[in-house]
Amino acid sequence: MTSALLTDRYELTMIDAALRDGTASRRCVFELFSRRLPAGRRFGVVAGTGRLLEQLAEFRFGDAEIAWLRSAGVVSEATLDWLASYTFTGSIAGYQEGEVYFPGSPILIVEGTFAEAVVLETLALSILNYDSAVASAAARMVAAADGRPLAEMGSRRTGERSAVAAARAAYIAGFAATSNLEAGRTWGVPTMGTAAHSYTLLHDSEEEAFAAQVEAMGVGTTLLVDSYDIATGIETAIRVAGTSLGAIRIDSGDLGVVVASARAQLDALGATGTRITVTNDLDENTIAALRAAPVDSYGVGTSVVTGSGAPASGMVYKLVAHQDPSGSWLPVGKRSDGKATVAGRKVPVRSLDHGVAVEETIYVEEPETLPKPGRGLLVDLVRDGVADPAHLGPAGVAAARDHHAAAIGELPLAAFRLSQGDPVIPTVYI
Amino acid sequence: MTSALLTDRYELTMIDAALRDGTASRRCVFELFSRRLPAGRRFGVVAGTGRLLEQLAEFRFGDAEIAWLRSAGVVSEATLDWLASYTFTGSIAGYQEGEVYFPGSPILIVEGTFAEAVVLETLALSILNYDSAVASAAARMVAAADGRPLAEMGSRRTGERSAVAAARAAYIAGFAATSNLEAGRTWGVPTMGTAAHSYTLLHDSEEEAFAAQVEAMGVGTTLLVDSYDIATGIETAIRVAGTSLGAIRIDSGDLGVVVASARAQLDALGATGTRITVTNDLDENTIAALRAAPVDSYGVGTSVVTGSGAPASGMVYKLVAHQDPSGSWLPVGKRSDGKATVAGRKVPVRSLDHGVAVEETIYVEEPETLPKPGRGLLVDLVRDGVADPAHLGPAGVAAARDHHAAAIGELPLAAFRLSQGDPVIPTVYI
Repeated sequence: MTSALLTDRYELTMIDAALRDGTASRRCVFELFSRRLPAGRRFGVVAGTGRLLEQLAEFRFGDAEIAWLRSAGVVSEATLDWLASYTFTGSIAGYQEGEVYFPGSPILIVEGTFAEAVVLETLALSILNYDSAVASAAARMVAAADGRPLAEMGSRRTGERSAVAAARAAYIAGFAATSNLEAGRTWGVPTMGTAAHSYTLLHDSEEEAFAAQVEAMGVGTTLLVDSYDIATGIETAIRVAGTSLGAIRIDSGDLGVVVASARAQLDALGATGTRITVTNDLDENTIAALRAAPVDSYGVGTSVVTGSGAPASGMVYKLVAHQDPSGSWLPVGKRSDGKATVAGRKVPVRSLDHGVAVEETIYVEEPETLPKPGRGLLVDLVRDGVADPAHLGPAGVAAARDHHAAAIGELPLAAFRLSQGDPVIPTVYI
Repeated sequence: MTSALLTDRYELTMIDAALRDGTASRRCVFELFSRRLPAGRRFGVVAGTGRLLEQLAEFRFGDAEIAWLRSAGVVSEATLDWLASYTFTGSIAGYQEGEVYFPGSPILIVEGTFAEAVVLETLALSILNYDSAVASAAARMVAAADGRPLAEMGSRRTGERSAVAAARAAYIAGFAATSNLEAGRTWGVPTMGTAAHSYTLLHDSEEEAFAAQVEAMGVGTTLLVDSYDIATGIETAIRVAGTSLGAIRIDSGDLGVVVASARAQLDALGATGTRITVTNDLDENTIAALRAAPVDSYGVGTSVVTGSGAPASGMVYKLVAHQDPSGSWLPVGKRSDGKATVAGRKVPVRSLDHGVAVEETIYVEEPETLPKPGRGLLVDLVRDGVADPAHLGPAGVAAARDHHAAAIGELPLAAFRLSQGDPVIPTVYI
């Protein structure tokens, strides 16, 4: 399935005009960055990079796409010819997927001709904006859960393909598993889930439903105990499965109260090893509020797949430099009110003090000062049109998850406050 | 591309258990509905139905999916055999796409065996929740724009495939066009767009950029005039294109002030027919605030594709009735705290008084009273596994857009207040 029409029309009309006047072949640098974090957030998390590289390989205008563009009168025949032979031959550097980012961080730096780079604007932004919104929210939930595992269960609360991306992004940010099977198949994310209320209601009694589930899945399964009355549900669950029951799930009610009572009941029944998982419209604040409750794991739906109040990351894709006809590089940036862009290619460094991040230092063009001590943030993603396979597929996801854990480990503790605040380190241009 | 793994794992494990104990073949009715509208909203708009019917046709567990499920140990061999031969053979009735809905409206009513119906839960909810969130937000923006056209330009602010769905949903709700090319190709949504700031910055001067654009696209094009200074940009635009220039676009600044000044400048230059389109982080409130400004059209991005504060519609998919072993229908509903479901199959009617909606009347099971005068809301979508082609493809989108306009026309004026309020008509169960 081609990704080439996941593109705003103006990208093709710009190419059309630029091919006519010769500017289409000027070498350009575009940067993808966020002017600010969502309100009150202290850091963001980059996700989607590996997906972008895979979609880049599918970014081809085939016969069907060309025919449709012709019938819709979008661009000239000359431009259709150019599109028909399109492959990206430039280079992309950027933040390793899973990395932490701040306002202005140059998350992707795309170098190529104007035409080959500008046409990737929408695809790159769609993927990075959504996936990073999910990962950024997920990272806050992981911090709030304070070591207890989280499962992503929000597939039904976002577009059906975004759901797969969300499961992947949450996993990179430290979630343990997802309910989404396609994310398991495509990206190697561990999958989980046992039964819904409909399964219990289908049966002539809760007891028959539980017995059939234990028969099929073994006593290690998770029984959903709140279809009717929770105390009765727990009693029935342990009677049917025995005290070796793996877990119960509670999906309703005032969880702080309900969970404490459920734990006491389980313990009284001798099911001291039976875990409790909760799944009722959780977000980072309700997760944190349950820290004192005997919850063993959380299932999170709507809030994580919708970025917990910030469903788009606000990233933009801007031209920051191009070669003039003489071949020398010219830094450029628009000056629009409230949306000005820092011109020139960037070199970002996470400045560290005894291993703790203190500044996002962004060197612009050729800095006169030497880089401060710290960690260089750019990795090669695509060279001369060829993606580094280390970022692709399940192995890329696993690497991103590992990288995320390391990058999070560098942040000062203030990064994990849930209250609204400023970015935890400043961005400084040099 | 199969949609079969766009599914939560628990659907397959429920089938696994239900196949073992024989309940999998019980006839069931599932309903898809929303317990409440997003905070303060006065109505919702159904979208995604046609997409769901198309994905239903692709819901097949092929060899690759079966092999992965086996390797992941998700279900038994017997269940894998059942999945391998899966096709939905039941029936689906529901609200016509584009219809207005309220809390409890049975937007889809799915009848089939437990196994064949439960497995569609996540796919149906993913599509309806997202698409309806966009359409519901879009309808408020259309009302706020008071007849001036709106273009959807938010592809970059949502997942790359959700972007296509968003363009389609906004069009159904009355938007005039989209920037998204795939939505044009797949769903027949008119596409629009000319140039971004990068195009201007690429050139050695704004004048050269404008001249090349007019050369390629003609004087009817839209020139983006705020890359540097708006007044200079407008002066240059008219000098290059002449007073027949189609439109200017302004993407920054305090639009109320900027637009009035731009209009005065255009008129003074003699470009009285040149339109003004604005595109700076608009939502229904800023659109309404520009009613007195000389804006000719709006481009809306982030807010429409993220549901303007309500990125998921909160729809759920619940078992409401099943046949017992004797073949008689049994209404069922969970009683979970705060999430109770009204048991029994529903028949919804939009009760009207002189053509104006006054109540969402929902008859439960076999009502003893006769239906009130009004409009029956259910249409057949799928009969015995076969989708009604009237709902598919671009023709389905066009029909949904027409239906939406008619359904919106029945609502009382209070529906279009932007302030927070209750649903504009009550839902009454009979």
